Amino acid sequence: MAVVLGPNRYGKAEIRLVRVVRDGAVHHLKDLNVRTSLSGAMEDAHLTGDNSAVLPTDTQKNIVYAFARKHGVDQIEDFALLLARHHVDSHPSIHHARVEIEEYFWDRIPPPDGRDERHSFVRSGRETRTCVVHHDRDGSSTVVSGLRDLVVLNSTGSEFHGFIQDEYTTLPPTRDRVLATEVSARWRHLPDGFRSAGPPEPPDPPEPSGSSGASGPPRPYGFGESYEEVRSRLLEAFAGTYSLSLQQTLYAMGDLVLRTCPGICEVRLAMPNRHHFAVDLTPFGLDNPGEVFHAADRPYGLIEGTVLDDAAPDARFAWE
Amino acid sequence: MAVVLGPNRYGKAEIRLVRVVRDGAVHHLKDLNVRTSLSGAMEDAHLTGDNSAVLPTDTQKNIVYAFARKHGVDQIEDFALLLARHHVDSHPSIHHARVEIEEYFWDRIPPPDGRDERHSFVRSGRETRTCVVHHDRDGSSTVVSGLRDLVVLNSTGSEFHGFIQDEYTTLPPTRDRVLATEVSARWRHLPDGFRSAGPPEPPDPPEPSGSSGASGPPRPYGFGESYEEVRSRLLEAFAGTYSLSLQQTLYAMGDLVLRTCPGICEVRLAMPNRHHFAVDLTPFGLDNPGEVFHAADRPYGLIEGTVLDDAAPDARFAWE
Amino acid sequence: MAVVLGPNRYGKAEIRLVRVVRDGAVHHLKDLNVRTSLSGAMEDAHLTGDNSAVLPTDTQKNIVYAFARKHGVDQIEDFALLLARHHVDSHPSIHHARVEIEEYFWDRIPPPDGRDERHSFVRSGRETRTCVVHHDRDGSSTVVSGLRDLVVLNSTGSEFHGFIQDEYTTLPPTRDRVLATEVSARWRHLPDGFRSAGPPEPPDPPEPSGSSGASGPPRPYGFGESYEEVRSRLLEAFAGTYSLSLQQTLYAMGDLVLRTCPGICEVRLAMPNRHHFAVDLTPFGLDNPGEVFHAADRPYGLIEGTVLDDAAPDARFAWE
Amino acid sequence: MAVVLGPNRYGKAEIRLVRVVRDGAVHHLKDLNVRTSLSGAMEDAHLTGDNSAVLPTDTQKNIVYAFARKHGVDQIEDFALLLARHHVDSHPSIHHARVEIEEYFWDRIPPPDGRDERHSFVRSGRETRTCVVHHDRDGSSTVVSGLRDLVVLNSTGSEFHGFIQDEYTTLPPTRDRVLATEVSARWRHLPDGFRSAGPPEPPDPPEPSGSSGASGPPRPYGFGESYEEVRSRLLEAFAGTYSLSLQQTLYAMGDLVLRTCPGICEVRLAMPNRHHFAVDLTPFGLDNPGEVFHAADRPYGLIEGTVLDDAAPDARFAWE
Repeated sequence: MAVVLGPNRYGKAEIRLVRVVRDGAVHHLKDLNVRTSLSGAMEDAHLTGDNSAVLPTDTQKNIVYAFARKHGVDQIEDFALLLARHHVDSHPSIHHARVEIEEYFWDRIPPPDGRDERHSFVRSGRETRTCVVHHDRDGSSTVVSGLRDLVVLNSTGSEFHGFIQDEYTTLPPTRDRVLATEVSARWRHLPDGFRSAGPPEPPDPPEPSGSSGASGPPRPYGFGESYEEVRSRLLEAFAGTYSLSLQQTLYAMGDLVLRTCPGICEVRLAMPNRHHFAVDLTPFGLDNPGEVFHAADRPYGLIEGTVLDDAAPDARFAWE
Repeated sequence: MAVVLGPNRYGKAEIRLVRVVRDGAVHHLKDLNVRTSLSGAMEDAHLTGDNSAVLPTDTQKNIVYAFARKHGVDQIEDFALLLARHHVDSHPSIHHARVEIEEYFWDRIPPPDGRDERHSFVRSGRETRTCVVHHDRDGSSTVVSGLRDLVVLNSTGSEFHGFIQDEYTTLPPTRDRVLATEVSARWRHLPDGFRSAGPPEPPDPPEPSGSSGASGPPRPYGFGESYEEVRSRLLEAFAGTYSLSLQQTLYAMGDLVLRTCPGICEVRLAMPNRHHFAVDLTPFGLDNPGEVFHAADRPYGLIEGTVLDDAAPDARFAWE
Repeated sequence: MAVVLGPNRYGKAEIRLVRVVRDGAVHHLKDLNVRTSLSGAMEDAHLTGDNSAVLPTDTQKNIVYAFARKHGVDQIEDFALLLARHHVDSHPSIHHARVEIEEYFWDRIPPPDGRDERHSFVRSGRETRTCVVHHDRDGSSTVVSGLRDLVVLNSTGSEFHGFIQDEYTTLPPTRDRVLATEVSARWRHLPDGFRSAGPPEPPDPPEPSGSSGASGPPRPYGFGESYEEVRSRLLEAFAGTYSLSLQQTLYAMGDLVLRTCPGICEVRLAMPNRHHFAVDLTPFGLDNPGEVFHAADRPYGLIEGTVLDDAAPDARFAWE
Repeated sequence: MAVVLGPNRYGKAEIRLVRVVRDGAVHHLKDLNVRTSLSGAMEDAHLTGDNSAVLPTDTQKNIVYAFARKHGVDQIEDFALLLARHHVDSHPSIHHARVEIEEYFWDRIPPPDGRDERHSFVRSGRETRTCVVHHDRDGSSTVVSGLRDLVVLNSTGSEFHGFIQDEYTTLPPTRDRVLATEVSARWRHLPDGFRSAGPPEPPDPPEPSGSSGASGPPRPYGFGESYEEVRSRLLEAFAGTYSLSLQQTLYAMGDLVLRTCPGICEVRLAMPNRHHFAVDLTPFGLDNPGEVFHAADRPYGLIEGTVLDDAAPDARFAWE
């Protein structure tokens, strides 16, 4: 037996960056949470405490703020790629970089009457947008975009029956139930230069990124447009699927994204079943025709699944 | 010395009620978190364990669900009043009831093309609406409405200087800073039959309650209209006040609500100062003209204040 | 109608202070979360933004750290009094100070064999100790000590029956149930110079403060000894009371503290009923003689009560 | 392009099980949070909503409670293996099962004087014990044990210098700092019948499992003894390592576990650097010789690493 060092990485988590763009009296806002992780020639740091290969996590934080000033921040995937490539190019002991970013959305508060200024914002509270980007010293990059905390509910149009019955079964089958979940979705982009046989162009010019106004004039199809389109397809498939199981709904959501959103080769979804139990009101002489529900916390069903293009290239480190 | 029982109450907290109204293919949704608390002739329960005056918290929960079926749920204040009055009227040992409700907002997901059904929803993520209602066996009721988690930010238009300087001062005065806060607001309604000399009617017919569609045709001015109007005034005052301190902004918000929203006699606000520190980029040869900020967590300033009509009637138990 | 400013206060919340005392190779640790709030001549700050009466919350934070260095930190109540008195004495515009402190406990990790050094600690995870102290410019102070997150469970010795039965009752009476709760307790100390006719001296020399070693030689009875004694009495009464209701247990806990712990005149307790439901295993051909439970989250019963000495002096602002 | 179903699983999360063993007047307590996940022939459920291969998550929950009654609960790993094997053996459509369990620790409250009963407990608040177990229809099982929320601190004995300096460096090197972290550790057990060349027997008879008394007489070395021993070694290495980097401390912790604890072939550690910044008190005319610290929240360094036996067998699905 010999004890050896296995996979490892180190970095700074939860770097909270707010970037304001001042376009005269009109301000634009980006609100991010950045995490960087580096790996490379780290044996000495672990075995002897020799830090000559270590870029301190404090320096990683400084770079995030400095790059936000130098390069601005538009789409989180682009900013993450910029950071990841910088790290791998900066010091030979850094072999690989992973950058994860969350974005929180804001809406504008309308300016008071007669004023031109636009510098007031309210957190929109919609879901959180995410990305994880990798860059390796072999020159390759991967980009996974995503969202979390997208809570959706169908108050009808959902059944559940035909499942395995055994000695531990007490759940009755149902022909009408509330189906609610909190969607966590991540989708892998094809690398540049690799395009599937999918739709050659975005079907409709989607809205620019929901972010509250950092974007300027219309741009070519990028990560912002892609995000809004995927989000719309997820909602559309959730609402439009007559559901016989949450698995069926999950698959329909991933399937629609893959078939309609350009440049995406794999979707991973985690969907907790937020149970809404119809309350038994018969002890009080009342019926309950699908109207009064107890929203339960724990335990909950948890459905996780992957939907992918069978021609998708190898994911390598994309999901790590 | 004699040991005695002082103020006490008991009840059920976190009763999660989702109420669906099925209007043909069009569904409406109310998503609530209810807490009921009762007090009264509870000496024996505490001193000897004699429970003959106790309405179990389990029964209190049942009543919430049964009433949701029997009476429906429109505005949370009205539902809370209904519950509170029922409790005080139901058993002589119950002298006083307090009902607190939170409401979570949902938006509709647009139905798929060509379909009439409307039963799909997405959590809007805007702030949480709240109320606390009391009813006493002397016949009087109080109603406090509110909101929390309304996060707002001005990227300019805020100064802070002229404060006390002493041997522990290190903060430099500033003429331009980001001002951000998470507003918790509660406002006390005048009791029925008591009207201030304020605006006799709502200035503009406000939007009906932001809730995603539980409301039907337009109704007279009620708690839903009042809520939307107060919320708009809070945002308007936050955005429209050139701020020399968070205290000044807080007062302006309460003042505007009192002057423009009918039937409200007192506003209480708690506003944490969500510090956004401009990052010092000079070590990297960069300036930072109010563009790159670190959003800090702890510690934070916390400003709490009350703004009220000097003719407001006594609050009694309204704020308990 | 005239709009006026009502009660208000401002300060710094969540000041995280870790104080190390280096006694040669033996270190002592205090881990605190401090909140200060000031009130006074704040009309101008609210109405016009004139900050000449404002001691910035940043300065309040600095004072906490500076005082930790100058005066050290022993019992949190003493440190809070020191801070509160300083503020009221420092500037005429500050009329009243409130200081709230939480303390987190640590245990020592035993030093490696043969070494004298003692500077390694592990968070104990026991409950959080708390205090709220007020000092007013009229010279009076109040001290409330407390704890929270003390989770306790009796697996038998608890009944619940004899309660009100009405048309909404479905809960069956029980002669044996699990009783579990998460105790939040606060107790008010008599002001200096005011002593009840209670026990003249602590019944047994209690252990010094549970904190992991900040204390030196034995000292006279102070807030640390008082804390450990109250905590022990709360546990003793919870375990020793055959319970017919959570109210009865709550009262027994407050009663025992008042009767045995010197210098305390009022106890306030909030005790959520952490329901443990016996699982119905009969569908699987199994009985369940009080052995298998589902620990439920929401909803939960919430019992709140006050137990006090009928000769207790007026509380004034102690509980604010 | 063809859209296909990729890896997927489904199950019940957060099944809260409290198991009481009644040994006359002496009760024993186990407090668990169980999650089960199944995978297998799930194509039809995803593609067509045919649920004939689906064991509902509700049934999975029932099995946890029924097995707790039938088989009791001793060590969480053993209970997880029992559940996982049952699932794979029960229905041909279930090919693989994953069971994750968390255990919360309780201490006994001493019984009142002169009584024999022992049925009162207080949550200890120490770290959470964890395990993840897999069982596959090929007959193989994997067991990973772990802990989280073990918060530790060295108030001296830590340096950090010699790191990369570049244009973005502002961190000064230090020869004395506080080193604090919240340890998440997971360790993989060798499969039965596979033993490394490590220590043939446990070096010292360790304490029986820290759980509050569910265990009876001494038993042969099992998961409970292993847990206590690993926990002790992690603390010992953290306290005993003079640290030049958190990476070095992490490696020392994994290394000591592998060298001294029988049957473990791989350790994975995630250790956030809970920064404690010495407060600059010079503006107040005070020095700060490593005594007054600000415990910061965000951002934080995050160090993740694996230490393993180079002869460890392939992990297969153990870490999934």
